[in-house]
Parts: sequence; C-alpha cells; structure tokens
Amino acid sequence: MTNITDKLIAKIDEMNNPTVAGLDPRIDFLPDELKKTATTFEGCAKAVTEFNCRIIDSIKDIVPAVKIQSAFYELYSHYGTLAMDETAKYAKESGLIVMADVKRNDIGPTAEAYAAAYLGGELYDYITVNPYPGYDGIKPFADVCAKNGKGIFVLARMSNPSAADIQNMKLESGEPLYMHIGGLIEQWGSQLVGENGYSAVGAVVGATNPDEARFLRKKLPSVFFLVPGYGAQGGKGKDAAASFDEKGKGAIVNNSRGIIAAYKTDKYKGMTYYAAAREAATAMAEDLYSALKNK
Amino acid sequence: MTNITDKLIAKIDEMNNPTVAGLDPRIDFLPDELKKTATTFEGCAKAVTEFNCRIIDSIKDIVPAVKIQSAFYELYSHYGTLAMDETAKYAKESGLIVMADVKRNDIGPTAEAYAAAYLGGELYDYITVNPYPGYDGIKPFADVCAKNGKGIFVLARMSNPSAADIQNMKLESGEPLYMHIGGLIEQWGSQLVGENGYSAVGAVVGATNPDEARFLRKKLPSVFFLVPGYGAQGGKGKDAAASFDEKGKGAIVNNSRGIIAAYKTDKYKGMTYYAAAREAATAMAEDLYSALKNK
Repeated sequence: MTNITDKLIAKIDEMNNPTVAGLDPRIDFLPDELKKTATTFEGCAKAVTEFNCRIIDSIKDIVPAVKIQSAFYELYSHYGTLAMDETAKYAKESGLIVMADVKRNDIGPTAEAYAAAYLGGELYDYITVNPYPGYDGIKPFADVCAKNGKGIFVLARMSNPSAADIQNMKLESGEPLYMHIGGLIEQWGSQLVGENGYSAVGAVVGATNPDEARFLRKKLPSVFFLVPGYGAQGGKGKDAAASFDEKGKGAIVNNSRGIIAAYKTDKYKGMTYYAAAREAATAMAEDLYSALKNK
Repeated sequence: MTNITDKLIAKIDEMNNPTVAGLDPRIDFLPDELKKTATTFEGCAKAVTEFNCRIIDSIKDIVPAVKIQSAFYELYSHYGTLAMDETAKYAKESGLIVMADVKRNDIGPTAEAYAAAYLGGELYDYITVNPYPGYDGIKPFADVCAKNGKGIFVLARMSNPSAADIQNMKLESGEPLYMHIGGLIEQWGSQLVGENGYSAVGAVVGATNPDEARFLRKKLPSVFFLVPGYGAQGGKGKDAAASFDEKGKGAIVNNSRGIIAAYKTDKYKGMTYYAAAREAATAMAEDLYSALKNK
C-alpha cells in the first residue's frame, strides 16, 4: 500500500532536499512594499498571501513541501482563514506537499470535524495533532488518513526549552513520557505503514534534543519524523541528522524564519525575500546532507 | 484585583446557573428549515449562525456563558471562521461570557499569535489551551490574560475514555500525570488570582471521573474548573458536583448536545430547538444545584 509518506519520501528524493519550508508569515517578515497594505485584517491577509505565493514560486522546484502555521493566519479572523487556504491551494497547484501545522486535538465528533475540515478536502496532505486526549483524539484523524490518503504528525518531543516540563516527566516504568507517547504513536499508525516502511501517522521530534531524537529514531522504525527547531531555535544540521535512519531517510526538517525571512540576515543582504528564500533552502539541503554523510 | 473569573462567578450567581451552553452546531442538530439552506460551506455557516443566535436569544437570561467549539466552524473554511466570530459577537452583545474551545497550543511567537487572535480583541473572554508544550506554551496566553483581563482553561483531566491512556500515566513520584499538570496549572496562574480566590488560569476537568475531580478540587484551591462530559458523555449532576468547592463555587459545567439538540429528545418533543434549549438549561441548573445540596 502506498501512503502519503511514500509520496513525501519520493518528493524529498526528487528534490534532493529533506526540508519543509515553514510559511509562518509574521508581518515584520514582510518587505516594506507589502507591509504598506497590511493595515487591516483584510490587508494583512492579502499581503501574507502574496508573500507566500512569491516564495512558493521561488522554491517549488527545490523543496518537497511547505508547512503552514495556522496561528499566523487565525490572527486575521476569516480573512486569515481564506489566506491560509489560498496559500495551501497555490502550494498544492505548484506541486508541493502541504502540511497544516494546526496542532488540533479533541475527541469524538469534534475530532471528526477537525479531521474533515483539514483532511477531508484537497488542500492539505498532513496536519499536526496533539496526543494529550489519547487514542479517542487520534482515531478520527487516522480513519480519515486511511480513507483519503492523508497523514498526521503527532507531537512527541517538541523543540522548545520547557517542553521537558511535561514531555520528559519520568514515568513509573522509568521511561520519560515522550517515549511512552512515541510508542503509542507507532501503535496508532501500525495499520497505515506504506511501501517505504513508514506510516502515515508520524511524529514531531525537535532538532534541539538530538540524543532523544536518536533514541526515538531507533525505537520507532515505522514512524516518520517532522523535525522543528532547526535554525532560529538553535538546532544545527548534525542535531537534525539524529532524526534520520541509516539510509538518510525517515525525517523532514522544518525551517520557517531561516527561509522566509532569510533576506533580513547579513548573509543574504540585498536580495529579494523570495530569492533569499531559495538560497537559504538550498544551503539547508547542503547542511543536512553533509551532516547525514558525517553521521 | 478583579479578574475574568470574578466576572464569571458573578454572572453564575446572577443567573443562578453554573452551566455553560456549548455551541457545537452539527448540521444534524439543525431543524429542517435551516438544514435546507445548508448545502454549501457558506450556506452551512449561515444556517449555523442563525441557529446559534436564536438559541442565544432564548437562553441569555438564564445561563452565564456560552462555549463555542471551533471544530464545527473550521469545517466551513473562512465562512466558518466568520460564523464563529459572528456567534461570539452576538453572544457578547447579549451579555454572555464567551469561551472559545480551541485547545490551541504552540510556543514562542506562534503562541503569541494564537493569544492575540483569540484574546487580543473583544469577542472571546476565555479560550481552552493544551498543556503539552509546557510553560513556553502557556506564558504567552497568561501574559495576554493579565494585560487584557482574559482567561484560559488548560486541559488537565479530560472526559473521554482514552484520556487515561496518557493523562493517568503514573509518574515516578507515584502521582498520575494529570495531577502533576494540575499542579503546574495552579503554579502558572498564581499571579492571576482574583477577588474570589480563583485564577484566570483555570483547568478542564471532566465530569466522567468524579473521584479524580474531587482530588483535583482539593489540591488546587485557586484553579477554576471548566467541566465537560455532563449529559451525552455520561456525567450526571452528582459527578459534576465533585468539581465544586464547599461553597458550591469553583466550576462551570458544559453541556452542548443536551442543550442545543434537546428538542430532538422525547422529553422536549414538539418544542422548537430554542425553547427546548431553554428548558434543558433550566433543568440542568436544577440538577446541578440539587446535586450540590446533597454533596
């Protein structure tokens, strides 16, 4: 059975780049010409859509996927929701795999509604999901994944400093919580494993804790990882490399600010935001593959 | 310092009803005359708004608050977001406290964006938040609560059967995870305690596990509880009563289907959906206060 993760892996191979570009368009990332029109919710939403589409045009032949962070769209009420969906549509039509980073979580008919909202249509291939409600909060998503050929990434070990407050709590068994949840994620996705051996139910595993990522990578051979925390949060290529298997597969690494706001750094000074985004996404592939070679 | 929870407590006292009406409008809850127009996203969103507003008209003088479940709006893309905001606006103008059940969770600037989206404006008084990212995912919300007089309810012990998969995992300390998280919630809200002794940082504690609710109620004297699981999920008045303090305060109990779809049950047969909603909300107050008297 081919699943969405097989498609993602094929696309990563085709682009030779295990990078997902995070479209988290904060207004202060926009160039002045777009900032000018960003004075109302409607104006912000339109500016953000324009910004995203120019970046997509510039990177669509070198990255396999984009990840759209819903928070930066919900900021603008229904104008933002439209901007998010329009961005997804444009990315999809540009041949990219589209992830919605929504971290939704609920139970029963409510989780079914979220699953239908994001995985019921054409726009999104993957969404992120929070595991706190347990299997009742996963099954409705997994069912839609099976039916519609979609995928989810369930939060396991996040990249932020205080994630450890909860995710690293040691259980009676001696195992930290994120490990237990990792095991549940593998179990939850066991019916959705594709031809490459990876399930449509993946996990979010931060680049900022490579030892933990290495441990999870070994323990969860069928779970594909979405890796945040590279770049602005401090994760390096060698840290992200911990999430890949011995064949250099099994993970995709997100970078948001480091790509879409690359033009604001000294390294890419003087370039347009979209040209700088392309350079940064290419540099990231080189960094990741070089780290994988030296792993 | 008066906080939003003081306002909520005053409103509960004024209405003599610790009930929050859950506006989770599934299309199959709608009466035929509204179902007819619910054939497109735009049509569904309009039908749902109409349904909500008639219910709000009917219950605004007997319940203190409504809780809007975002999943049932996100189903209809930007039309749904507009319907959600219009419902909130109508509820607010009708004098109700408005909760958005969004269970958002993220970190840093992303959590700030969610906090600004839902607690930055006039429409929502409270939102629900998932604790999995730890304090980095709470602080941005708590900061906006402090600044704008808003509140959050953080998931502690949910009402669904599989919540125990994760939330009841025993920690090395012997404590179940939900207890540890309960303690963190109290800590996270310690700077936002109001005149009634309750913080603007509350907790979600399901009615389906009264022993655990009783334990949390004792351990977390400054944490106000939002209690789901009454009615359709099996929680009775006496179960919900476990979340209240000895003065009969400290909690508000949600009921969605049991109020907005009451007209579909034998008990309220022949009534309009909004008249039945009013009867059901009144009956719920009686049930809860009778359980509290016999506690």
